[in-house]
Formats: sequence, C-alpha cells, structure tokens
Amino acid sequence: MRSVIDILDLSVEELDELVACANDIIANPDKYAHKCAGKKLATLFFEPSTRTRLSFEAAMYELGGNVLSMSDAKSSSAAKGESVADTAKTISCYADIIAMRHPKEGAPLVASLNASVPVINAGDGGHNHPTQTLADLLTISREKGRFDNITVGFCGDLKFGRTVHSLISALSRYENVKFVLISPEELKLPSYVKKDIIQQNNLEYVQTTDLEAVMPELDILYMTRVQRERFFNEEDYLRLKDSYILTPEKLENAKPDLTIMHPLPRVNEISVAVDEDPRACYFKQVLNGKYMRMALILKLLEVK
Amino acid sequence: MRSVIDILDLSVEELDELVACANDIIANPDKYAHKCAGKKLATLFFEPSTRTRLSFEAAMYELGGNVLSMSDAKSSSAAKGESVADTAKTISCYADIIAMRHPKEGAPLVASLNASVPVINAGDGGHNHPTQTLADLLTISREKGRFDNITVGFCGDLKFGRTVHSLISALSRYENVKFVLISPEELKLPSYVKKDIIQQNNLEYVQTTDLEAVMPELDILYMTRVQRERFFNEEDYLRLKDSYILTPEKLENAKPDLTIMHPLPRVNEISVAVDEDPRACYFKQVLNGKYMRMALILKLLEVK
Amino acid sequence: MRSVIDILDLSVEELDELVACANDIIANPDKYAHKCAGKKLATLFFEPSTRTRLSFEAAMYELGGNVLSMSDAKSSSAAKGESVADTAKTISCYADIIAMRHPKEGAPLVASLNASVPVINAGDGGHNHPTQTLADLLTISREKGRFDNITVGFCGDLKFGRTVHSLISALSRYENVKFVLISPEELKLPSYVKKDIIQQNNLEYVQTTDLEAVMPELDILYMTRVQRERFFNEEDYLRLKDSYILTPEKLENAKPDLTIMHPLPRVNEISVAVDEDPRACYFKQVLNGKYMRMALILKLLEVK
Repeated sequence: MRSVIDILDLSVEELDELVACANDIIANPDKYAHKCAGKKLATLFFEPSTRTRLSFEAAMYELGGNVLSMSDAKSSSAAKGESVADTAKTISCYADIIAMRHPKEGAPLVASLNASVPVINAGDGGHNHPTQTLADLLTISREKGRFDNITVGFCGDLKFGRTVHSLISALSRYENVKFVLISPEELKLPSYVKKDIIQQNNLEYVQTTDLEAVMPELDILYMTRVQRERFFNEEDYLRLKDSYILTPEKLENAKPDLTIMHPLPRVNEISVAVDEDPRACYFKQVLNGKYMRMALILKLLEVK
Repeated sequence: MRSVIDILDLSVEELDELVACANDIIANPDKYAHKCAGKKLATLFFEPSTRTRLSFEAAMYELGGNVLSMSDAKSSSAAKGESVADTAKTISCYADIIAMRHPKEGAPLVASLNASVPVINAGDGGHNHPTQTLADLLTISREKGRFDNITVGFCGDLKFGRTVHSLISALSRYENVKFVLISPEELKLPSYVKKDIIQQNNLEYVQTTDLEAVMPELDILYMTRVQRERFFNEEDYLRLKDSYILTPEKLENAKPDLTIMHPLPRVNEISVAVDEDPRACYFKQVLNGKYMRMALILKLLEVK
Repeated sequence: MRSVIDILDLSVEELDELVACANDIIANPDKYAHKCAGKKLATLFFEPSTRTRLSFEAAMYELGGNVLSMSDAKSSSAAKGESVADTAKTISCYADIIAMRHPKEGAPLVASLNASVPVINAGDGGHNHPTQTLADLLTISREKGRFDNITVGFCGDLKFGRTVHSLISALSRYENVKFVLISPEELKLPSYVKKDIIQQNNLEYVQTTDLEAVMPELDILYMTRVQRERFFNEEDYLRLKDSYILTPEKLENAKPDLTIMHPLPRVNEISVAVDEDPRACYFKQVLNGKYMRMALILKLLEVK
C-alpha cells in the first residue's frame, strides 16, 4: 500500500505514468466513469481549502466513487484531543483512501504510517502539497510536450511559496532545466532550496528582481502572490508590489508560446486583462489538477 | 448555455414547461432516476441555508447525479480574497451546474457571466430567490390548477420579503390576478414594486392592515414572518404582531379551498394548530421546491 | 414506520436479527452494495461529531445510497428559530431516513414524532446514543460469541458516560451477566442506574476503585475517559488519573481472551502500547459500528 506525502515519493517513471493516465482520462473519460464504483474517498481537511477539497471530490465522483467529506476541523474528534494516528485508524474503517490537509507539517505523514488505506497529502502547513505539483506538471507536459530543455521563471514570493519549492524539486530531476528566480530581495528563494536542489542537480539558475528584463527568455512563467504581510515595512511593499503584477504590457516581449501559470487563488498579481491571452493557462491548471488527482487515486487504489 | 438568476429570466412558456416536467417527475419518478448520471451539481453557499442547499442536493440525487457541497464561505477561497468571477471559473472545472447563494446582491449574476456551466441563483441578499418562486408556482398550479383568475393575499412583512416580490413579479404576467396586500404600515409593499410590477401590468390590488376582514375573498394566503427588528419601536411591534399570526380562528371565514402558503422556516406566524388543516400547504411547498429544482436542473443541463 | 431513539426500542429478538444481518454484511458485502440504491440518508448534526457522522455516511454509501449532510447547526434553519418538529417535517421531503445528533436530550424523539421517515438517534446530549451500543454489542457478539454468562468491567467515568449506561441497559436483558464497576468515588455509576437496571434485573455487580485487583476475572473491559473537569479538585484528579489508564503492565493478570473496548475518541486512558495487544478491540468496534448502522438502516427502511 502506497501513500503520497511528498512529490519526491513518486519516481520520474511514476510521474510519466500518471501524466499518461491523466491524458488518457482526458481523451476517454467514459472509460474511467465507473473505475472506482463502490470505493470511498475521505477528504479530511483540518484546515479549510474549498478549491483543493472540491478538486479531490470531483475527481472521485468522475471515477464513479463516493466521498466522505470533513471540511472543517472544528467538527472533528481532534477537537476532543484525538491523535492524528487514531483519526487515521478510524477513518480507515470508513474509507478506501484518504486525502488529508492539515495545518501542522508532518501530520499527513503520521496519518499514512497509521492508516490501513492510502493517504494523499493535500497540503500540510508550508511544507508539501504534492497534488498541486502534479497539476503543474501535467500543465507543463500538455503545453510544452516535455519536462526537459525548458526555462522556467518563478515570480513573486519565492521564500514562502511551497508550490514553488515543490515544482523546483520535481523539475530538478530532468535534463537542461533552467530556473529564473524573480522576486524582491525580501522574498528570495531560500538558500537551502538553491543548494540542496538546484545546485545539487547541477542546474542553471539566475536570480533577479526584474520581471520584464528576463521575460523574453522564459518558456514558462509561474506567478505567485506577493503578500503585504511578508514585508518588513509598508514602504518596501508599496514600492515593489506593482513590479510583480503581471499585465498585458509586461508580456509584450514574451515568447509567443509562453505558458503562464499560477496555483490560484489569485488576488491581483495577474491582471484580469491577461485572462484572455491564449498563453494564460491558470484555469487549465485547475482542470489538470482534477485529472492528475484522478490518476493518482487510480494508482494508489491499484485500479486497473 | 442558460443560467437562471431572476424568475423573469424564464418566460411564461418556460414556466409552463417546468411545471409540466415537475408534474411528470412526481407521477413517474423512476423515469428520472438516472437522467443526470455522471453529472455533478456544486452547491456554493457563501451564506448558510441548510433548507435550500439540501433541497438542491436532494433534487440532484433523485436525478442520479452527484453533489459537490460548500456549505459555508468561511472555508472558501473567497476568504483569501478570490473574486466571484475566479471562483465561478474554477468551479466550472469541477461541476456541470452551480447553485449559488451569496449575501451580496448580484454575485450569482457575476458568477453566471464567468462560469462555463449554468448557474442557478439560490438567493442573493434581499434580491432574488427564483427557485423559491418556482416552488410557490408549482404549489399554486397543483392546488388551483391555474395561475390566472385568482385572488392572492400576501400577509406580514411585504417590505423586505424577497419571496413576496418575486412571486408578485411572476404572477403579474397572468390574466386577472388580484393581489391583497396585508401588512402593518411599517411593512407595506415598496411603491416601486406596486408601480413597476402591479400597476404596469394593470392588475387589481388592495392594501389593508386587517387580515380577517379580507380573508373571505382569498384563494391563496401567502404568509411571511414579521420580524421584531423591522419595527421602529417595541410598542408598535407588540401591538401589531398578533394580527399577523395565523390561527384556526382567523381562518373561520376563509374559503373552503383556500391555499395557505409560507416559504418557511416559520417562527410563530402560523400557529401549529393550523398544520392539521387540509388547506395548509407549506410542507407541500417544500416538496414542490425539490421537484421544480429537478425540472430546472434538467432544463439547464439540456437533458432529454 | 419505526424510529430508534433508545437502545431499548429494540427487542432482544431484534438485536439478534441486527447482529445476524451485520455478520452477513461482513461475510457478503457485495450482496448489500446496491440495497439502498436511490435512497437518501440525511445526517442532521446539530452538534459536531465527525466520527459518528462519517460512520453513518459510510454505512449508507456501502448500501448504495446517497447522503445529505448537515454537519453543523450554525448553518441551519434552527439558527433562524425553526422548531425541531418543522425541521423534521422539512427534511422528510428530502430524505428517506434521518440520523440526528442534537445537544438537547429528547430532540431526536420530537423529530421522530413529526418526521414522515424513520429517525435514528445519533446521540442526544448525555442521554442516548443507541448506535454506539449497537457497535458495542456486535463487538461482544463477535469476540465472545454470546451476550450471557459474561463478566463485564466498566472502567473510568461511570457517572456521566452515556455509552456505559446504555450498554448496561442492553446487557441487563441477558442471563448471568456480571458487572464490575471500576471508578473513582467521584465518578461512580449513578444509583438510579444501579437500582432501575442492574438490581431490577437481579444481576450481580461489584463496585471498586481498583482496576488491577479485578482484572483477572473480566471477560470484557470497557474503558472510558476520565475528564479532568469532572473532579472537584485538581489534587484528586492528579492522584487518581493514572489508576484508570490502561497499560500493558495492568494487563499482566488479565484473561488471555479478554476483550478490551473503548467508545473512542481516546485521549490517554489507553496507552498506545496496548494497541498491538490482540485483545485490543476498540478499532474493531469502529468497524462494527459501521456494519450495525448498515443493518439498522436496512431494517428501518424495510429493505429485504
């Protein structure tokens, strides 16, 4: 029995397999409409996230399964002092697979060690969120046709953005990937990510504060939110925030086949005027997330 | 692709069609039990309303479909600052149809302009609640066999009651409908409703503060709640409130085939002693609401 | 139409029937996978309890039915002042069977008197929780093969623990059941339970504060939580709490076929070191609870 807590729990071969499965689901949805008939997914969200929860639930329904939903920890036994281990053992009596989001880093790992069914980490604190990375990877695969030989720009908050760290981890296993790290000084990629992941894998990278200057070389631009509360002072925030808002003007020198991504929800870091641009792929990412979750559920339930 | 935000989005012909469909569902439920197999309804309730939410969900299940449920905005991306437009685009990736309740007037309209699936307004502030009106119309149709040539009394809070305004709108398109508007001075029907809807359509109406005096002429009595907080002073409230509580005594001079309606929940504006009266139709309204929601889902999903 | 509000609503013969049905479900799950197709269970939880709610929902899904879920009263019409009677009448329009948890004792009874579908009490205040008792009884039946000729120890909070009172009620109808009541003075079994149930049925019982002393004679040990807030002073709590924590050491003189039970969630009253002991049956109880809820739903819906 397998669980997925970290994107690196999946080998490069397994990622290829999941991408192939998701593509087949997109091409032949009817073939999969009853694959999980009689199976139940429990979505255990100890921290609210409607978007991620509904994506998992839609995925399970499109496979013909059912869903046990807990959208809010306040209504849980955890509030009565139950351990994550006991919760995992209990829910294993009700469901065939668990998707767990938890504000505490490591909680889904503890759950996976105690559950008798597979556990998928649906986000644990600032730590991991592997199914978001799966959504990102399917989007790159479908838009670019490859994971190697690409230049990927990450823009905004690279310090706290767990989706950025995860996607860098996942992409660092491919050949000739170049990272362009675009952020204010305050929100630079942590040096442990640079050392342990990018340099360890001998990948090229540049760091810059200037989005427009590097725009022409990007194959992919992955935007993230710059949150006011991350700045030490209001003055810096006001000075910098507009530099990291994507507008049609800033895209003028971009490649015609650029892929613009964002993990959503966005607040204002991508102007809605960009939505009409065919290069905007962030709502495709949402759809791709559902298909990759379907592929992952099938894999972990060992459904043929 | 059609959405329903306001009851007037539906033509008189379409209302007839929905009523016919609901009657057929009631007569032949098995025929409809799998019509929406593989389809998903998302109930996006940014304001809680268990009654309306469960009615939509029961409707979808009785059509063989599935449900993605968000019962409370606190757990939503909206809390992270996402726009209604983005939420609508995202949920369109997960569901085939959306029922949205929102405390802000106009939010379901914005959603419908951005979603790629049909949106049903499940109540937006004090504005619209078209599926309640559909429930009311099916009840009138089944109890009276017609929408024209009827005298309809509305009693209680006619100022703020959106269900009253909507039902007056819907009925004003039929011939020879007479409205009897029964309320304290403080809670009279707003003059824009009288002017724009009743007078514009050359319909007869009377205004009164005396429920018992007009009781004998009513074919339908639509009760609503008189809320203490609507009054300027406690004295007026205490003086008036009992006049607008329906009791068996007040029904003594009513027609034997009167239809008593209420959108529910009630607090005390209809005495429970009235529940046994065969003219009490408010729980039938609940059931009719489910059937009209089934008919509407079928229509918007273009299921044959 | 039958409802189950109190465990004694079910005769000894009906309990045997439910146990037989649950055993058949465990042996032949596929036979039951579509028994409730097209039926809907409403879980109306006016007080949160994820464990119980998900157990009911898993039960209904494993019977092929669907679920209307209300996990939190804040989002209900009750918040607008609706009576339990009206809520029950309304939900009867949406669901085929209702499982209701309510903080007020008697609320599920009121619901059952007004609903037009069966109501199962899923816990009302400190009063009744019959499906927990069904879980306990199936566990005893499967582990011991009988309900008579057994010595059952109850340990911990016997004063407020409704599961203890219910199980004593249920077992008091069998022959030669001996109760061993292990608790601090402050948390002794209420004398009305002793008088009205145990003595009335001429059953043997002993009261003690010493778990280890009575351990060798027990066939079943039913642990419950000792809550700090139940004690008059902190000193007593600190002095007593460890005596009622089950550890491998305290089990040294226990029978080799002892059955260790707990209604869960536990906090620390059973050491996790006990979990590996084959006599630990509290997670089996969770599973058994689901199967007994399936059996009860089938019985109340009169599904053959």
